Amino acid sequence: MNAYSIGVDLGGTNLRVAAIGAEGQILDKVSEQAVFDAGPRQVVNEIVGVIQAVRARIGADGLRGVGIGVPGYIDMDAGIVIGSANLPGFEGFPVRDEVQERLGTTIILENDANAAALGEMWLGAGRGVKDLILLTLGTGIGGGIVINGKVLHGFLGMAGEFGHMTVFPDGNPCGCGNCGCLEKHASATAIAAMGRMMHFGRDTTSAKVYELALQGNERAKRVFESAGRALGVAIASLINIFNFPLYLLSGGPLPAWDFFAPSMFAEVNKRSFTFARTGTRIEKGLLGADAGLFGAAYLPFECGKAIGNQPSVISHRSPALS
Amino acid sequence: MNAYSIGVDLGGTNLRVAAIGAEGQILDKVSEQAVFDAGPRQVVNEIVGVIQAVRARIGADGLRGVGIGVPGYIDMDAGIVIGSANLPGFEGFPVRDEVQERLGTTIILENDANAAALGEMWLGAGRGVKDLILLTLGTGIGGGIVINGKVLHGFLGMAGEFGHMTVFPDGNPCGCGNCGCLEKHASATAIAAMGRMMHFGRDTTSAKVYELALQGNERAKRVFESAGRALGVAIASLINIFNFPLYLLSGGPLPAWDFFAPSMFAEVNKRSFTFARTGTRIEKGLLGADAGLFGAAYLPFECGKAIGNQPSVISHRSPALS
Repeated sequence: MNAYSIGVDLGGTNLRVAAIGAEGQILDKVSEQAVFDAGPRQVVNEIVGVIQAVRARIGADGLRGVGIGVPGYIDMDAGIVIGSANLPGFEGFPVRDEVQERLGTTIILENDANAAALGEMWLGAGRGVKDLILLTLGTGIGGGIVINGKVLHGFLGMAGEFGHMTVFPDGNPCGCGNCGCLEKHASATAIAAMGRMMHFGRDTTSAKVYELALQGNERAKRVFESAGRALGVAIASLINIFNFPLYLLSGGPLPAWDFFAPSMFAEVNKRSFTFARTGTRIEKGLLGADAGLFGAAYLPFECGKAIGNQPSVISHRSPALS
Repeated sequence: MNAYSIGVDLGGTNLRVAAIGAEGQILDKVSEQAVFDAGPRQVVNEIVGVIQAVRARIGADGLRGVGIGVPGYIDMDAGIVIGSANLPGFEGFPVRDEVQERLGTTIILENDANAAALGEMWLGAGRGVKDLILLTLGTGIGGGIVINGKVLHGFLGMAGEFGHMTVFPDGNPCGCGNCGCLEKHASATAIAAMGRMMHFGRDTTSAKVYELALQGNERAKRVFESAGRALGVAIASLINIFNFPLYLLSGGPLPAWDFFAPSMFAEVNKRSFTFARTGTRIEKGLLGADAGLFGAAYLPFECGKAIGNQPSVISHRSPALS
């Protein structure tokens, strides 16, 4: 039986599960609606049920573990969601231990944006790179920092809040209490809001602004130019701070790359001499919504390497050297 | 013979050397003028001479190695300064190998601001903390990022360029090509320039602005308030990005803390919900100009740990397991 792992992406809407081989082969993929009405224990039941079905189809022998990506702050040591706007009832609930007890295999809980950064590193635009930053443009802007192949969590699991970097100190107000947060100028929500400012109608979405830009609408193009400038200010600072070789963008507005990238690159060129003088890359993520799912599946392999080596050395040594 | 290491701080003006024991005891300290007129080889001669004298006084047995902090970008693998504004003639010169050959002990070359961050962690305001950021306010603003006790270098040794974070997108012009770089609004140089804008005279220094503020001069106080706001914008973003427990400031303007800290903390409180909700600390560095010197001395101990373990395992295993 070849080694494989199972990734779980638990969002506010969907529960998605994938079984992936050690070389990145997708062995199975399941998607169903996530229902939170009956509380976290019922969601755990759902997760466990889907994983058991996948495991039964593929075989239990090769399973190295399960990674679960969730939208929220994670206490990595405890395996607990300590804060989440999208998972009602999960705060303080011991997700990892509940699932682990039921399945009897290693479970690793991780923030979904961090998982997406790992997914892009493993199977997407970051193949071959060990140090990268992913920014995910959605309702807000989140992301993940990968250093030497591992996620940077910070001391409370709150690292990577790129959406709340200040890009325009007197910019749009943010629910966090700040003005000029990146996500108020470049998220899908911000693009839609700027579209409404351009009188595209109350039901304007970032996708609609994109459609209008494709049709040649100059005001729609200027919305993306504005978002690109904000992204450029933030990414230039990130490059000056981290000096990583690769910065990735993903999320709903990504198809509009050709509309926001020129102003983004213009800002980065101006604001980061590191970018201007080196081969630093800013690119599109390649995995879309699968990045977090695949990255969740990567977690057991990554931890397996660290954990797996120790016992084998000890077992070799103990008879000969003790 | 107790273990000790030697730290070297090579600046544009002074060459300083300290011998420090494994527990942080200062065993010896030397300072002399650095002379660059005769080229890098002459500077290396000076460094080697001072270290030999220190080693002769303390004894060669306990010496674990020498760390050298220099103001410039370092190729850590090659031990070469790849760029420096303050060390004429050093670009591309193999500092590490030249010194190593002459002394026959492990030499580690490191950027001086990175060394200062390690120094504060080891013996200063960061004792007991393994993840911290240090910002050094001087002619420009540099700094170091320490993650799990180790420096983050980036792929070209250019990480930690906090001085070129954009804080005011339309702010003061910077030699790097950007507008609104942190160091154009909060370095010692920027404080002096704002003092000149306040008509304190052509020879105004940040120290003079501080003296005037101490005397109650309201315009001088406003200079520091302005610098504090810029620092607050930048540090808030750093907190949102890293979620580290500790951010330290050092450098010439540090005595003016009471004048710039209130506006700095006001900005950080507004712009980082992570700061507002957690026990994140922003504090003064405690070691002043010695931080880089002590941090340089820390390097051989840190590397000694990693390097020292491997051979002992191999030597145990080779006869029994081969």
